[in-house]
Amino acid sequence: MNQVNIALIGTGRIGRLHARNLAYRVPGARLLAIVDVLPDAAQACASETQVGEVCSDYRAVLERRDVDAVAICASTNMHARIVQDAAAAGKHIFCEKPLDLDLGRIDAMLAAVHRAGVKLQVGFNRRFDVHFRRVRDIVASGEIGVPHVVRICSRDPAPPPLAYIKVSGGLFLDQTIHDFDMARFVIGREVRELYAAGEVLVDPAIGEAGDVDTAVVTLRYDGGAIGCIDNSRKAVYGYDQRLEVFGSRGVASAANPRPDTAEWSTADAVHSSMLGFFFIERYTDSYIAEMRAFVECIQQDKPPEVGGADGRAAVVLGYAAKKSLAENRPVRLEEVATPKE
Amino acid sequence: MNQVNIALIGTGRIGRLHARNLAYRVPGARLLAIVDVLPDAAQACASETQVGEVCSDYRAVLERRDVDAVAICASTNMHARIVQDAAAAGKHIFCEKPLDLDLGRIDAMLAAVHRAGVKLQVGFNRRFDVHFRRVRDIVASGEIGVPHVVRICSRDPAPPPLAYIKVSGGLFLDQTIHDFDMARFVIGREVRELYAAGEVLVDPAIGEAGDVDTAVVTLRYDGGAIGCIDNSRKAVYGYDQRLEVFGSRGVASAANPRPDTAEWSTADAVHSSMLGFFFIERYTDSYIAEMRAFVECIQQDKPPEVGGADGRAAVVLGYAAKKSLAENRPVRLEEVATPKE
Amino acid sequence: MNQVNIALIGTGRIGRLHARNLAYRVPGARLLAIVDVLPDAAQACASETQVGEVCSDYRAVLERRDVDAVAICASTNMHARIVQDAAAAGKHIFCEKPLDLDLGRIDAMLAAVHRAGVKLQVGFNRRFDVHFRRVRDIVASGEIGVPHVVRICSRDPAPPPLAYIKVSGGLFLDQTIHDFDMARFVIGREVRELYAAGEVLVDPAIGEAGDVDTAVVTLRYDGGAIGCIDNSRKAVYGYDQRLEVFGSRGVASAANPRPDTAEWSTADAVHSSMLGFFFIERYTDSYIAEMRAFVECIQQDKPPEVGGADGRAAVVLGYAAKKSLAENRPVRLEEVATPKE
Amino acid sequence: MNQVNIALIGTGRIGRLHARNLAYRVPGARLLAIVDVLPDAAQACASETQVGEVCSDYRAVLERRDVDAVAICASTNMHARIVQDAAAAGKHIFCEKPLDLDLGRIDAMLAAVHRAGVKLQVGFNRRFDVHFRRVRDIVASGEIGVPHVVRICSRDPAPPPLAYIKVSGGLFLDQTIHDFDMARFVIGREVRELYAAGEVLVDPAIGEAGDVDTAVVTLRYDGGAIGCIDNSRKAVYGYDQRLEVFGSRGVASAANPRPDTAEWSTADAVHSSMLGFFFIERYTDSYIAEMRAFVECIQQDKPPEVGGADGRAAVVLGYAAKKSLAENRPVRLEEVATPKE
Repeated sequence: MNQVNIALIGTGRIGRLHARNLAYRVPGARLLAIVDVLPDAAQACASETQVGEVCSDYRAVLERRDVDAVAICASTNMHARIVQDAAAAGKHIFCEKPLDLDLGRIDAMLAAVHRAGVKLQVGFNRRFDVHFRRVRDIVASGEIGVPHVVRICSRDPAPPPLAYIKVSGGLFLDQTIHDFDMARFVIGREVRELYAAGEVLVDPAIGEAGDVDTAVVTLRYDGGAIGCIDNSRKAVYGYDQRLEVFGSRGVASAANPRPDTAEWSTADAVHSSMLGFFFIERYTDSYIAEMRAFVECIQQDKPPEVGGADGRAAVVLGYAAKKSLAENRPVRLEEVATPKE
Repeated sequence: MNQVNIALIGTGRIGRLHARNLAYRVPGARLLAIVDVLPDAAQACASETQVGEVCSDYRAVLERRDVDAVAICASTNMHARIVQDAAAAGKHIFCEKPLDLDLGRIDAMLAAVHRAGVKLQVGFNRRFDVHFRRVRDIVASGEIGVPHVVRICSRDPAPPPLAYIKVSGGLFLDQTIHDFDMARFVIGREVRELYAAGEVLVDPAIGEAGDVDTAVVTLRYDGGAIGCIDNSRKAVYGYDQRLEVFGSRGVASAANPRPDTAEWSTADAVHSSMLGFFFIERYTDSYIAEMRAFVECIQQDKPPEVGGADGRAAVVLGYAAKKSLAENRPVRLEEVATPKE
Repeated sequence: MNQVNIALIGTGRIGRLHARNLAYRVPGARLLAIVDVLPDAAQACASETQVGEVCSDYRAVLERRDVDAVAICASTNMHARIVQDAAAAGKHIFCEKPLDLDLGRIDAMLAAVHRAGVKLQVGFNRRFDVHFRRVRDIVASGEIGVPHVVRICSRDPAPPPLAYIKVSGGLFLDQTIHDFDMARFVIGREVRELYAAGEVLVDPAIGEAGDVDTAVVTLRYDGGAIGCIDNSRKAVYGYDQRLEVFGSRGVASAANPRPDTAEWSTADAVHSSMLGFFFIERYTDSYIAEMRAFVECIQQDKPPEVGGADGRAAVVLGYAAKKSLAENRPVRLEEVATPKE
Repeated sequence: MNQVNIALIGTGRIGRLHARNLAYRVPGARLLAIVDVLPDAAQACASETQVGEVCSDYRAVLERRDVDAVAICASTNMHARIVQDAAAAGKHIFCEKPLDLDLGRIDAMLAAVHRAGVKLQVGFNRRFDVHFRRVRDIVASGEIGVPHVVRICSRDPAPPPLAYIKVSGGLFLDQTIHDFDMARFVIGREVRELYAAGEVLVDPAIGEAGDVDTAVVTLRYDGGAIGCIDNSRKAVYGYDQRLEVFGSRGVASAANPRPDTAEWSTADAVHSSMLGFFFIERYTDSYIAEMRAFVECIQQDKPPEVGGADGRAAVVLGYAAKKSLAENRPVRLEEVATPKE
C-alpha cells in the first residue's frame, strides 16, 4: 500500500491545519474527503485544500472503500463515537487529544480499536517537535545517564474563553495533558504518583468556574525519578514551552525557539526577538511530522508512535492531578484508574 | 488579476525547489507548465508537483496566453536569452541570480524588461530570510541610528565541484554575490569602492583554476559607512551566515539559526546542536517568501522587492572585487561599470 | 565610626575565604585577630592575611575593646554559644549559615542579639550574587508584575563526604537551606506550606544514612504564588544554580554564569565552556559583597540585609521539608514552628 | 628569589589600578614604593595601598637595592627614558603600552633591555583576558585546524577627550594597537601587509584633528590567513570586544561577557543585561593576571609572555595602518620598518 487516502472529520482551527498539511505537506497522503456537520465549513476547508468531496455525516466516509484512514478533529465529546465507528469500519485512526474526558469511554474506544486491528494515533503533536524530540533522543541514547529529574515549563500566552474552560475538563485535562504526555515520552517511564498545587492568579472568573489557572505538579516516576511541571494560563511574553532532563551523567534541555535570531542593543537596552505567539506557530512543523508519522505507520504497518495507551495515560494523570488538587495530598495513579496494559 | 499562472523553466535543484513552492506553498500562484531541455527531468518535476503540462522548449510556454509569468531557473548562460524573449512576450519574470556574468548582456536584459513594462524579480532570496530581514527592518526603523559598519560572514560548508567553480565566474560572482546584495539591502545604500583580499587556503586546485577560496572584502559606502564581508568555501562545522550592522545609536545582528534549541552537558563538555548543512535547509522559508513576494508584486502591480538594477549592482561589485584582487588595490565601481540609474 | 575592626573565628575553608576578603577586598574593614581552636590553623590564616593577632579561644577577642565585630565561621554546633557570648560582649555579628539546627537555640540566639542591640547578619551569600540579585531587583521594581511562580534549580557537583552528610541535618537543612532563603528573598514573601519529594538516586549510602540526594520541593507562598526547588547532590557537569520568577506581567531569570564566553565548533560538535566547579568559584564575588554589606550596615547603623529572622525562617522551612518527606504530605509551617515576628 | 619588590611609577588611572592589584591581588609581589611627579597623587595612591614609601623622582627608586622591578605607568613620552634607566639599573620592567610612538626610540629601549639582561613585559593586558585566551588556547591546540580568518571587533563606548586624541598617535596607535597585538597573539603568526579603511562618522572634530573614528583594517598574515579588525570610537551600547578565529577544521570565538546573566521578558520586549561600561570593568581580571604573570616570569626566570618585540610589532602595525589610510592602498610592513628579529 503506497498512497494513504484520508478523510478528515471536523474543520475547526486544528482540523483545517491538519487538512492543509495532509493536502500539501505529507508525501504519501491523499486527502479524499472533508467532513463537517456545518456544510459551509466543510466546503471552505475543501476549497482551500482542493479536495473534491465534502459531506456533513462522518458515517458516509466510513462507508467508502477507498478511504484508508480518518483524521478526527471533531469536538472531544464526539471522539468516542467516531473512533468506535471508524474502527468498526476498519479505518485507521488519527484522533486529536484528549481521546475523551471519561476513562470508561476511553477504554471502550481502545477495545474497539484493538478488536478491529486498526491503528490509532493520538494527536500529541509535541512528541514530534524537533526541540523536544532531540532531548528525548539524547536521553534515550544514554548520553546523560539515568534520568533523575524532569522539568517541564508550559505556559500559554492567554487563557481560552471562559466558556471553553468550563467544558475543557479543567487545566489539568486541557493544558497539562500535553505536559503529562511529554513527561512520559521524554524519559520513557511511567508515573506512579503525583502532587498538584494550583492557584487562581490570572483571572478570578476561572476560579469561579471551579478551575485553577496556575499550577505546579510534582511527578513520581517508577524507579525513582522526580518530575516537575509548571503551568500558567497566561504568560504575557508569549507561549513558553521548555523541557529539561537531568540525569546521572549530564543534563539536556530545550529552550524556546524564537522567530528570528536578531539581537539589538542601544544605549538603553539589549533586545532579542519575542517568542512566537501560540501553538499554531510554535508547533507548525510538529503537526506536519505527526501526520507524516501517521501515514508512515500505516504504509509500513508499524505501531503508531503515540498509541491509545498513551492517550489514556495522559487522561489518568489529569484525573489524578484534579484529585490531588481537591484533596491537597499526593495521589497514586491507581486511586483514579486501574492500570491498563 | 487574482491567480498568477506561472511556467517554470529549468528543473535543476533550485528549479525543483521553486516548483514545489509554487505548487504548494504560494497562495495565488498556479504552476501551469514545467520546462526543461531534458524531457525526463521536466516530467519528474511535473509529477512531483502535479502539473499537467511539460515541454522542452521555453518558447512554447511564452506563446501561451494563459501564462502570466515565468520563473527562470535555467543555467546562467541561458538567462539573457530567456529574459529577453519572455519580456518580448509580455511575461513577468522571476530570474535566478546572477542575471548574467556579462554586464553588456545584463544591460540588454534590463532594457528589454523596461521596454516591455513587465516585472523582473532577481532571486536574491536572502533578502527574504526572516533573520536578515529583521536586521534590515531594525536599521530601516532608525532604531540603531546611522549605519557606520556592516559585517557579513558568509561561509559555505564545502566547495562546489571544481568543474562548477571553473564556469561560475569565481568566488566573488558566485558566492560573494549574495553578500554584495545583502550589503546593499541591509542599509539601503550603494557601495562606491571596495578592496578584496583573497587566498587559496582550502584547496590548491581552486587556486590552479584561477580562483580563491577565502576572502575578506572591505566595502566603502556612499556617505561613509564601511562594510566587511568574509567568505570561505569550506566551513566544516556547517553553513555559517551572519550579519551585523553597527550604527550611531546601536547595533543589530542576526546569528545563525540552529535546527533545534537543545543543549546538553556532561562531565566532559557542553554541547549545542550543529548548524543545518546548507542553503536549501537554511533558507527554506526565504525561497517561499520570495515567490510569495513575486506573485504579490504582480497581483498588486507593485515594483518587485529585488529588481533588475539590484541584479546588476551585485555583478558590478563582483567584477570590482575581481579587479581589486588581481591588482591588490582598492577599486572604485566606476572603474568596472558606468553607474546605471 | 569609620573603620570596622573584626575578629574572625574559625579558619576552615569558608573562614579562610572570609579572612582574605576582609583583609584585602572590603574597604573599611580591618581584620584584627584570627581565632581557631587549632593554633596552627589560626596562624596559617593570619600569615596569609598579614594579621598580627591569633588566639585559640574566641572569648579572648570578645574582651578586646578595639574589636567591633566578629565573623563566626566555626562549626555549626558552636554558633549558638559564640553568638550569645558575642552579643553579651556588645559585638556585632556575622554568622555563617545555618544559625543552628535547633529552633529553640536559634530563638535564644535571636533573643540575645535583640537584647544586646547588636547587628546580626547571616551568611546567605547568594543574596549578594549579582545574577540572582538582578532578578530580585527586577521583581521588586514591579517590571514583571505580581509573582506567580518561582523556580529554583540548585545542584551540587558532587556530594560531600558521608561523614559530613550524617551531621549536616540532611539535604534540606544543608543544601536546600540556601534555596529556601532565595525563595523568600527573590519575591519578598513568606512561604506558608510546602511539599517535599525526595529520592536516593545518587548514592545508596546517602539513603542508608537516612537522607535523600535528589529532591523537588513545592512551596506555597502567602498570597498564592507557587515555588518549585529542585536539588541534586551530584550534577556531573558542574555547579548548576539557576533562578526564575514568572509574574503577571513577565518573567525574569538568571542562568549559570560561565567561566568564559568561548564557543567553538568543529565538524563534529558545537561546544561552549563548562560551568565552574563549585561554590567558591561560582560565588566568589558574593562573599565579598556580603562582607561589604556587613561592614556598611555597622558603619551606617542600618539593619543587616540578611537578619536573624531570615536565618531562622530557612531552618523552619528545612524542618517542614523533612516532615513533609517523612509523611509524604504537604506540611504547613506552623506545624513545625510558631511564627516569629 | 621568592618575593618580588616592585616600585610603581605613575599614578594615573591605570597606575592606581596596577598599584591596588600589586598590593592585594598578586601573590609574591610586594609594592615597595609609589612614584609620581605630583607628590599628592603619589601619596593618595600609597595610602590606598598601604605603601610606606613615596617619591617624585623615579630615579630614586632605581637606586634602591631592594627594588627588583618597576611598573611603568607614566605618560607614553616618558616610557623610553624610564625603561632605559631602569634597564641600566638592572631592574625588571613592566611597561604600559605603547612602548613609545617612535620606532627609533623603541629600538633603543629594546637594545637597552637586551644589554641589561632584564625582563621587559609590555602591558597588552588583553592577552590575559580569560575569554580571548581561551580562544587562543583552542587555536593553539590545533582543534580548529590551520587559521584562515581572524575577526576582531573592538569598539569603545565613547571617544576620549579631543585633547587626548591629538597626542595619542591616532586611532591606530591608540585604540587599534590592542587589536593588532591580539591579531598576532591569537594565532601566533606575523602580519606582512595590511589595508586600512577609515572614516570620520562619530565626531567631525576628530576629523579636524587629523584622525578617524571608525575603521576596518584587513590584515594579511604570513602563510596566508586574513584578518579583519573593525573599530569605532563610540558604541553607545557599551564596550564591545569580540574575537573569532575561523580555521580549516572549525571556528572559535569569544563573545562579550555580560555583568550578569539575567534575562527578562514582558509583553513588549525580551531583555538581557547591558555590557559593562569600559575597559576597567571589562578587563579587571586581565590586569591582575598580567601582573601575576610578570611576577612569575621574574620568580621563575622565564621570558615574559608579552615581550619588547611584541610591543614594537604593534606600533609597526599602527604606522602601516596610518600609511595605508593616507595613501588608500595596501601597505607592506617593511615599508614602515625593517623587521626586527
